[in-house]
Amino acid sequence: MSSLEPVFVSLKTAQAVLALQNRQQKDDALRGAASAINAARVEILAANRADLEKARANGMKEALIDRLLLNDKRIDGIIEGIETVIRQEDPIGKVKAGWTLPNGLFIEQTTVPMGVAAIIYESRPNVTADAFSLAYKAGCAILLRGSSAALESNRAIVKAIKQGLADGGGIPDALALADSGSRNEVDEILSARGFIDVVLPRGGRELIRRVVDNARVPVIETGEGNCHIYVEPDADPVNAVDIIENAKLQKPGACNAVETLLVKSPALPRIMPLLAQRLAGKAELRCDERSRAAIGEPPPGLVLKDAVEEDWETEFLDYILAVKTVDSLKEAIDHINRYGTKHSEAILTNNHRHAQVFSEQVDAACVYVNASTRFTDGGEFGFGAELGISTQKFHARGPMGLEALTTIKYLISGTGQTRE
Amino acid sequence: MSSLEPVFVSLKTAQAVLALQNRQQKDDALRGAASAINAARVEILAANRADLEKARANGMKEALIDRLLLNDKRIDGIIEGIETVIRQEDPIGKVKAGWTLPNGLFIEQTTVPMGVAAIIYESRPNVTADAFSLAYKAGCAILLRGSSAALESNRAIVKAIKQGLADGGGIPDALALADSGSRNEVDEILSARGFIDVVLPRGGRELIRRVVDNARVPVIETGEGNCHIYVEPDADPVNAVDIIENAKLQKPGACNAVETLLVKSPALPRIMPLLAQRLAGKAELRCDERSRAAIGEPPPGLVLKDAVEEDWETEFLDYILAVKTVDSLKEAIDHINRYGTKHSEAILTNNHRHAQVFSEQVDAACVYVNASTRFTDGGEFGFGAELGISTQKFHARGPMGLEALTTIKYLISGTGQTRE
Repeated sequence: MSSLEPVFVSLKTAQAVLALQNRQQKDDALRGAASAINAARVEILAANRADLEKARANGMKEALIDRLLLNDKRIDGIIEGIETVIRQEDPIGKVKAGWTLPNGLFIEQTTVPMGVAAIIYESRPNVTADAFSLAYKAGCAILLRGSSAALESNRAIVKAIKQGLADGGGIPDALALADSGSRNEVDEILSARGFIDVVLPRGGRELIRRVVDNARVPVIETGEGNCHIYVEPDADPVNAVDIIENAKLQKPGACNAVETLLVKSPALPRIMPLLAQRLAGKAELRCDERSRAAIGEPPPGLVLKDAVEEDWETEFLDYILAVKTVDSLKEAIDHINRYGTKHSEAILTNNHRHAQVFSEQVDAACVYVNASTRFTDGGEFGFGAELGISTQKFHARGPMGLEALTTIKYLISGTGQTRE
Repeated sequence: MSSLEPVFVSLKTAQAVLALQNRQQKDDALRGAASAINAARVEILAANRADLEKARANGMKEALIDRLLLNDKRIDGIIEGIETVIRQEDPIGKVKAGWTLPNGLFIEQTTVPMGVAAIIYESRPNVTADAFSLAYKAGCAILLRGSSAALESNRAIVKAIKQGLADGGGIPDALALADSGSRNEVDEILSARGFIDVVLPRGGRELIRRVVDNARVPVIETGEGNCHIYVEPDADPVNAVDIIENAKLQKPGACNAVETLLVKSPALPRIMPLLAQRLAGKAELRCDERSRAAIGEPPPGLVLKDAVEEDWETEFLDYILAVKTVDSLKEAIDHINRYGTKHSEAILTNNHRHAQVFSEQVDAACVYVNASTRFTDGGEFGFGAELGISTQKFHARGPMGLEALTTIKYLISGTGQTRE
């Protein structure tokens, strides 16, 4: 007997009702949720302090403590996320295509909710509210399976949301927290065929691999980003170094941070000395022979190593940048298509034709011309909250907002037609 | 060592080239394929005769022999299918959405090919050409794994297509037949992560279950259709019986054939006697008590049985129709959402509000108002050939044409933007 089965049934029942709500009803309910989170600040912050104390007692690293931490500003961010979702168009009931057959049958392809989603995530409690609000707006019920480290915070947020949904005339049973803390819960979710229509793993590589390998329900794979920036000689060198610095240093632990820089050989003298100066004391460079030589005398504080094959394959998620010299656009594209994870890839160039070829031939969710890879993000793209960044090609690709939680239905109306 | 690995590599390499071809190039290649099939009629029919002889010698049933059979008319149909695909718009390079961020970054969501598809199918040799032509137009390479019964026919068709692609300036390596006949081949395809981007099983329930349960690459589930027609009292009775007869008798083995008729109680006297007359000698009725009583004296030749619970769950794929009386629209919708396979469901009514409620609340790929369920078909929908009918909600739903073989890519162009 599955311990989560009553929860699955309750979510499925709630989703059938939510699927029929119009935008006004869904937005009113979301406004209720945002107000209730605002009103429950004291309780949410107290719950978060309890999680933080426990985490510190268990020796959690400070970087992870920071992910877990809530404060008034972060609660403002959670509320702003819900408000952005409220402002989005309703993704449901859109006619994507429509046509009439020769026999007069009229066919419409319309968007409908995917159904019941589950999200399995790590410590950040804001994901709880983000994922809920996107799911609710898309007419989907959602099962939230956060990390045990954030359990009290998540309970307080979910309690506030349910209260707010009730206040706003919404459907409180459209979300549920899987909060027994047992690892077995994850297995139950991954095999809940007929109950869970999609599972979204959001977190580190180990979590995602475990979900992808074990799921018997549809999964959207997220996260892994071995991203590249390729620089051509006619790119403005200062702007190029600005972009590389931004893509590497602004948040090195993010999946859209750059990991390997590819420099077309004639650009080496324009780029490498400037880049070495800029990153000295901030990030380690792992260079191939030609790019290392182009630096000349290393500036004080620069950590400089020789790149090895493994560096091209590694998502460092750290203050480390691998640098490789290429002799052609084709060599750059081949390197990216071989070592990349199809996440975010950039070319810095003023050559229009090269920008086009790179955009066409690089196989990735997001291909940038003359911009930092760090923009691959639902918030930056204007989706409000995000469900994660899909690195697969099936069903959803790139930053996932409301659309990822929809599917289609064909509505066919006739006047008595039969098939010949 | 995988015996199919060289084939996977060759398909992947060919796909990278095909992905960059424009519509003109793809259509020219498809025209070459259609001409070559036309020119190879003698060889294809000879190969088909060899398959048929072997099948008869192995005691294959006549219904299955008919599926395997090719003749000039069926080859005309194969060619016409390719020509219809040629007439379709190119599904690749469409900008589905585009917007500019406040910082000036311009984002476009464009369609790109899914990559390498594999289709695992049973005996019908026309699927070979249908699946190839859709894949090619969508910029996808395709691995064809037909049944061993159709091996010689498929070899002859694939040989002609490859010749035609060469003649038309296309890419012959964009298709391959997995023709060792070993069952192990299917397992290799199902675990070819990194090589195969999507697997389409097309055939009976056993084949589909085997693929869905074992695949480690994305699968689109197809086929199972426990379809319903629900009749209200204000539907025209003669037209209603025309539609029911069409949906049951025109091709009972098809997944879009009706299996259970739901009759709202006041409609029983208008529908049941007429239906009993119409189906007498043609199909068996399995009725609940009230619908059986409404028939009165059974007409000569009518096979009439009492329905049992199992009948509501069964996709008969045969000349059998289950009939159940319901007392409300809600009861009909609940029955369908409980027993249906989310394939094709129809309401026959003149009540506008009821048609709307049924369309909204029935969870199925295709919902019909006043028409036969038999129209759920890529050809009927105007897609040209079809890859199958998806009964899942993830990635593709309903009859699958070109769109099911596409995914998206975000192209982001900037003028040096970095993230704040």
